[in-house]
Amino acid sequence: MSERTVFFLSDQTGVTAETLGHSLLTQFSGQNFRQVTLPFIDSEDKAREAVKKINLAADSGAERPIVFSTLVQDEFRAILRKAKGLHLDIFDAFLEPMENELQQKSTHEAGRAHGMSDIDSYMKRIEATNFALANDDGGITRNYEVADVILLGVSRSGKTPTCLYLALQYGVYAANFPLTDEEFDSGSLPDFLVSQKEKLFGLTIAPTRLQQIRKERRALGQYASAQQVRYELREAEKIFKKYDVPHINTTEFSIEEIASRILNSTGVERRVRP
Amino acid sequence: MSERTVFFLSDQTGVTAETLGHSLLTQFSGQNFRQVTLPFIDSEDKAREAVKKINLAADSGAERPIVFSTLVQDEFRAILRKAKGLHLDIFDAFLEPMENELQQKSTHEAGRAHGMSDIDSYMKRIEATNFALANDDGGITRNYEVADVILLGVSRSGKTPTCLYLALQYGVYAANFPLTDEEFDSGSLPDFLVSQKEKLFGLTIAPTRLQQIRKERRALGQYASAQQVRYELREAEKIFKKYDVPHINTTEFSIEEIASRILNSTGVERRVRP
Repeated sequence: MSERTVFFLSDQTGVTAETLGHSLLTQFSGQNFRQVTLPFIDSEDKAREAVKKINLAADSGAERPIVFSTLVQDEFRAILRKAKGLHLDIFDAFLEPMENELQQKSTHEAGRAHGMSDIDSYMKRIEATNFALANDDGGITRNYEVADVILLGVSRSGKTPTCLYLALQYGVYAANFPLTDEEFDSGSLPDFLVSQKEKLFGLTIAPTRLQQIRKERRALGQYASAQQVRYELREAEKIFKKYDVPHINTTEFSIEEIASRILNSTGVERRVRP
Repeated sequence: MSERTVFFLSDQTGVTAETLGHSLLTQFSGQNFRQVTLPFIDSEDKAREAVKKINLAADSGAERPIVFSTLVQDEFRAILRKAKGLHLDIFDAFLEPMENELQQKSTHEAGRAHGMSDIDSYMKRIEATNFALANDDGGITRNYEVADVILLGVSRSGKTPTCLYLALQYGVYAANFPLTDEEFDSGSLPDFLVSQKEKLFGLTIAPTRLQQIRKERRALGQYASAQQVRYELREAEKIFKKYDVPHINTTEFSIEEIASRILNSTGVERRVRP
């Protein structure tokens, strides 16, 4: 199938256009999309440069480009609208009904979303990230009394990236503790976890998938053997049952989904919003 | 001002609805928005539950709710459309023009975006995160030959969260190295950095802001003193100039913006897309 370029235009980072656009593109299978982000279009020159890039893709003989735009300033949008492509303008579609509802004109000012307008949330995310790093892998500080959630699971079940994502995206204080032979042999959790029982949340994963992930890290030895991963996952499951720890199977989920399901299941509040 | 509840509805994580909605809400200042995410609406029961929550907010005497929806399944959307609120349906607005353009019906299947459809990108993000952790703060491994970018800056200039964000969001291999007295005294970078000169990228920050951030960590002593932060930032700047290291001032930027500007400035390719 002939290639089609999809552009994400923004006067800011492009994260909003990318997230929305990607979500829509996944609704069409079998297409051959080439994705290009053009961020920080905040001058007439940059707008004209973007038009050139879009027209180049359009004139290349491939399919007509699709252009997702989150630009807010009218003068730049006017320039870009002349580019050859299907224009899907997020502000066109939603700002007018919002203005009517709120009985207020939108500011049409760039740079409000993802901006430092909120220094407070920047600090919260940084602090939550530092917390996740200090309390990673049963690590150094074990400040579990200030944690919002403490993830439990075997090695490579996804604890660390999930904690970091919870911190960076939501400002949530997430610690994690690895389940190892010590817990499996005793069949018990250490006291410092039992006393925080209501914060515990377990991650489990399909044995074949865990094997695959562990092999990437260390191909040889027991660590990634079928027998070992099955044993560990079975023992972890027993511990989740014994202590009534809510848990999810992460096999089919992305990091975003795991994080989102944890918040949804535990009721932990986001400290900041994306 | 009277409160208005804004709902983000999704059959998945809600990240798309939140990102888009937040970006639009920032265009209206002085409003009093209460934001509520209702993710994983994947059954008629859950759809009806969401309707109840929206109607409760509508009947509370506050302003009419605004409802951002990224639901894809028609039966659930039909239920939700009956809720009392201003409905902004992302799929309604964009899927039809995309279907016409692509001459293909959209799948209307939930769970494609942020899903594990792409195990490969999950692995890439995990590996990039592990890389960032191992190569944090001049740390353990210094696998700089496989890094995409190496961030330089003084303590608390934003290096670590930026590296983690680059890893989690884009699968980019980002290392970071702190500039300290060793570099300031010699006015030089160590050889293992000079040999990777083309990967270096500097972060700088306004002295007052750095002081504020450092005080959160350690209020007393030289670390957060005006004199010390000014000295360090001045010396760091000299090093950036000496080695011709591109750099940005992060004072006014969020983590997303810093990450996005680095990619834009260096031309480093995203390994995965959000």
